[in-house]
Amino acid sequence: MTKPTPLSGFPELLPEQRYVEQQVVDTLRATFELYGFAGIETRAVEPLDQLLRKGDTSKEVYLLRRLHEESAEGHAGIGLHFDLTVPFARYVLENAGKLEFPFRRYQIQKAWRGERPQEGRYREFTQADIDIIGRDDLPFHHDVEVTRVMVDALGRLSFLPGFRLQVNNRKLIQGFYAGLGVTDTDEVMRVVDKLDKLPVEKVRTMLLTEAGVDEPTADRVLALATIRSADDSFVEAVRALGVEHPLLEEGLDELAQLVRSVTDLVSDRVRVEADLSIARGLDYYTGTVFETRLDGYESMGSICSGGRYDALATDGRTTYPGVGISLGVSRVVVPLMARTGLAATRKVPSAVVVAVVTEESRPVSESVASALRARGIPCEVAASAQKFGKQIRYAERRGIPYVWFPSADGDHEVKDIRSGDQVAADPAAWAPPEVDLRPQVVSTSSTNEAQETNQ
Amino acid sequence: MTKPTPLSGFPELLPEQRYVEQQVVDTLRATFELYGFAGIETRAVEPLDQLLRKGDTSKEVYLLRRLHEESAEGHAGIGLHFDLTVPFARYVLENAGKLEFPFRRYQIQKAWRGERPQEGRYREFTQADIDIIGRDDLPFHHDVEVTRVMVDALGRLSFLPGFRLQVNNRKLIQGFYAGLGVTDTDEVMRVVDKLDKLPVEKVRTMLLTEAGVDEPTADRVLALATIRSADDSFVEAVRALGVEHPLLEEGLDELAQLVRSVTDLVSDRVRVEADLSIARGLDYYTGTVFETRLDGYESMGSICSGGRYDALATDGRTTYPGVGISLGVSRVVVPLMARTGLAATRKVPSAVVVAVVTEESRPVSESVASALRARGIPCEVAASAQKFGKQIRYAERRGIPYVWFPSADGDHEVKDIRSGDQVAADPAAWAPPEVDLRPQVVSTSSTNEAQETNQ
Repeated sequence: MTKPTPLSGFPELLPEQRYVEQQVVDTLRATFELYGFAGIETRAVEPLDQLLRKGDTSKEVYLLRRLHEESAEGHAGIGLHFDLTVPFARYVLENAGKLEFPFRRYQIQKAWRGERPQEGRYREFTQADIDIIGRDDLPFHHDVEVTRVMVDALGRLSFLPGFRLQVNNRKLIQGFYAGLGVTDTDEVMRVVDKLDKLPVEKVRTMLLTEAGVDEPTADRVLALATIRSADDSFVEAVRALGVEHPLLEEGLDELAQLVRSVTDLVSDRVRVEADLSIARGLDYYTGTVFETRLDGYESMGSICSGGRYDALATDGRTTYPGVGISLGVSRVVVPLMARTGLAATRKVPSAVVVAVVTEESRPVSESVASALRARGIPCEVAASAQKFGKQIRYAERRGIPYVWFPSADGDHEVKDIRSGDQVAADPAAWAPPEVDLRPQVVSTSSTNEAQETNQ
Repeated sequence: MTKPTPLSGFPELLPEQRYVEQQVVDTLRATFELYGFAGIETRAVEPLDQLLRKGDTSKEVYLLRRLHEESAEGHAGIGLHFDLTVPFARYVLENAGKLEFPFRRYQIQKAWRGERPQEGRYREFTQADIDIIGRDDLPFHHDVEVTRVMVDALGRLSFLPGFRLQVNNRKLIQGFYAGLGVTDTDEVMRVVDKLDKLPVEKVRTMLLTEAGVDEPTADRVLALATIRSADDSFVEAVRALGVEHPLLEEGLDELAQLVRSVTDLVSDRVRVEADLSIARGLDYYTGTVFETRLDGYESMGSICSGGRYDALATDGRTTYPGVGISLGVSRVVVPLMARTGLAATRKVPSAVVVAVVTEESRPVSESVASALRARGIPCEVAASAQKFGKQIRYAERRGIPYVWFPSADGDHEVKDIRSGDQVAADPAAWAPPEVDLRPQVVSTSSTNEAQETNQ
C-alpha cells in the first residue's frame, strides 16, 4: 500500500490535536450535565424522506447502499444525517411515551454534508446541540435557560478565542413589519438577511423591487436592522422608530429579558448582544434566534446558532415546541489548529515514563507504573532498555515531563526533564504537580503569525 | 408526521440507557489513558478499495453516494468503515512521519456493517480498540501490555457481568502442527476453528477428509485444542503430547509469560485462561490471539478479540507490526439493557430540582441553582410554579433524589424525597452525599427474570 492521501472535507486530527477536541467536548458535556441536560445519541442514518424535507440541504445528503443490496429487504431509502435536529425531532416522536417533558437533551455527534469543502465547512463534522422540548407548550424562561447554558459553556472553553453571541427575536421583526403594514414579512426578512453579504444600498433596492415595499418602509426596515446593543437599550432605539404592534411588544419584552438574564455570565471573552439584523434563514424559528461569531474568524460566519421553534415535531395530535442551540465543534477547532497550531502540550496522556534498566528488570519498572496508576497518574514504561539518555529523549519527543529511574532496592528517583531536577521518590507517594498531570492546551504558533494568516 | 418506527439493526438508547454506555466509554477511556494510550478518531469513510481488501466483510460494506453527485469530483469510491483496524492502519501510514513509535492509541467510535441484525450484531455499533504499533519491530512485552490494559479496563466495569479472556498463540499452534509434520497448517487451523460450532467427531472427520491428515495426527491436533488452564500448567499438558518444534517452544514461552503476567489483575469477575482451541479466523494474526466471553451471554460469541499482527500496515519500505484488542461496546451493553434492564437510576444528570414558589420569584430559584452548580452539583429549576406536591412528582418521575425549597429571605430547605427527610440548607454549602451526585447504574429487572431470558 502506497502512502494514502487525505480526503478533502474529512479532517482528521493528530493525537495532540484530538486531545483539544476531546477537551472541548468534555467541557461542553460537563456544563450541559450541570444544568440537567441528558446526553443522547441517535443513529447516523435517517430515512430519506425525512432528510429531504428541508429543501436547502437535500442536495448535500449522502445516500447509503449496501454493496450487495438484497432486493426489498435492503435499506434503499436511508442516508446520513446532515444535522442533529432532524434526528432529534424523530427521536422525540418515536420515544415520546418514554420521555419526561420538558425534555432537556444534549447531543454531541458527527454529521455529514456533501458540500464543497472550505475553511470551517467540512463533509464530516462534529456538532454539539442542546435543546429543551416541551409537550404542547414551553414557557419563554427556557429560551433564557438554553442561552445561559451555552454562554456558560463557551466561557469555560478558556483556551479558545472569544465569542460574540448575537440574539434577536422573530416576533420583534415580524411585529415591526406588521406594524409598518408589510404584507409579505417572510420576503422582507429574506432580503434583509442578505445584509451581511451585500451593501445596504443593494439591499434597499431589492426591498423596493423584490419585496415591493415603499421607500419610507424600506428605510425603517433597514433602520431596525442596524440596531444593536449589549444591554436592553435597543428597546428605546426601536421605540424611536415609531412603529407599534402587539407582537413587536412581545418580541421586545422577550429579547430584553434574555439580554438582562445573562449579565452575570458575560465577560470580555464571551459577550452577548441584541443584534436586530439577525433573522436566521430557516422559517421554522418563531421567537428567539441566535448566531455566534468567533473572534478573529468572523468571515466563517456563525459557528453556534439556533432559536425557538413552536413545532419542532408533531405527530398530528401533539405538538412539541422547542428551543435550542447548536455549536459547530469542528468549525471552531479545526481552523484554529490550522491557523494557530492549537494543540496539547504532549502527544500522549502519560505524565511519566518509567525507565527500564535491563529487560530482566522490566517487572520492577512495571510495578512502579502500577503504583503510579493506582493513584491516577498516567504513565508508560519505556519500550526498551536503552541508555538512559535515549530513554529521556523518548520522553522528550512525546512531551512527557517526567522520567522515573526505578531501583530494585527501593532507591527510586524521578527527573523533571524540562528543568533537569532529579529527586528521590516513592512510587506509593510521589505525584506530579496538578498542572503536569494532564496535557495542557496551547497555541504553538506565535500570535503574530496567527494574526497574519487571519487577514 | 406519524410516529416513526425503529430501524432494525440501528439500536438507539433512552437517556437512562445512554448514560450506561457513556459510563462504559468513560471508564475505558480513563483506563486507556492511565496506560499512556492517546485517543484518536478517524473519519467514518474509507476508499472502497481499502474496504474491499478483506474478502469476509466486503459484502457488508455501506457505499456512499451524494444525492446529486457531480461527475468526477464526487466520492464515487467511498464507503463507511466496518471496523477500526482498517482505518487505523491507513492513519498510521498517512501520518507515520508525525507519530512517535511505538504508538499507543485507543479509538472509540461507531462502525457500520450491513449484516442481518440479531442479538449482539448490529448494523451500527460502537467499538473500543487499543493497539500498540511499532516501526519495523515491536517486542513481545507489548502483547503483555495490551492484555493487562484490557483486563484492567474490564475489571473497572463493575456494573457489568464477568468476562473470560481466552488467550492462545498462533506460533504455538503452527509450531505444534509443523512438529507433527502437517504441511497445510492453515487448512488444519480452519477446520479446528469449527470446534465451537460442530461436534468433535465431525471435526475429526473433516481433518481426515478435508485437511488430509492421518488419524494419529488428527487425534493430537484435537488433543491440543482441548487444553486450557488459568495458569501456565498448559505448558506441561502440551509437552505431554510429545511434539517438538522451535516455533512451538517460542509460542509456549510467550503464552506462559502472558498468563503469568496478569495474575495481579484477574479476579472472579475477570478471568484469563490459556485456551488452545482459540485461533481467530483472520489470517493476519501471527502470535498472541484473544477472544472474550461475557458471562451468561456465551452464545453471542467473542465480544472482545484481537491479537498480534506482524504487519498491520506497510508502505513497501517500512512495516508496522502491531498488537491490539477490540471491545464491542454495543455488543455488550445493548443486549444487557434488553435482558436485565441495565440503566441509570435517573433519567437526567440533575441531583436536585430547585422548586419555584411563584413565576415572579423564579430568579431566587435560579440563584440557588447557580450556587449549587458553582460547586459542581448538577441541578435544574422546576419548569413551572405548580403546587409543591406536583414539583416533587416532577422530580420523582425523573428519579431526581432531592427537591430544594428556596426562600427569598434565606430560610432554604432541602428534601430527600425518598426518605421524606427535610432539612435547612445553605445553597453555598449544602451538598448531596457522593453517591447521589451522579446517577448510578443498576439492573432494573430481577435477577431471576434475567436468568430466565438467558436460557
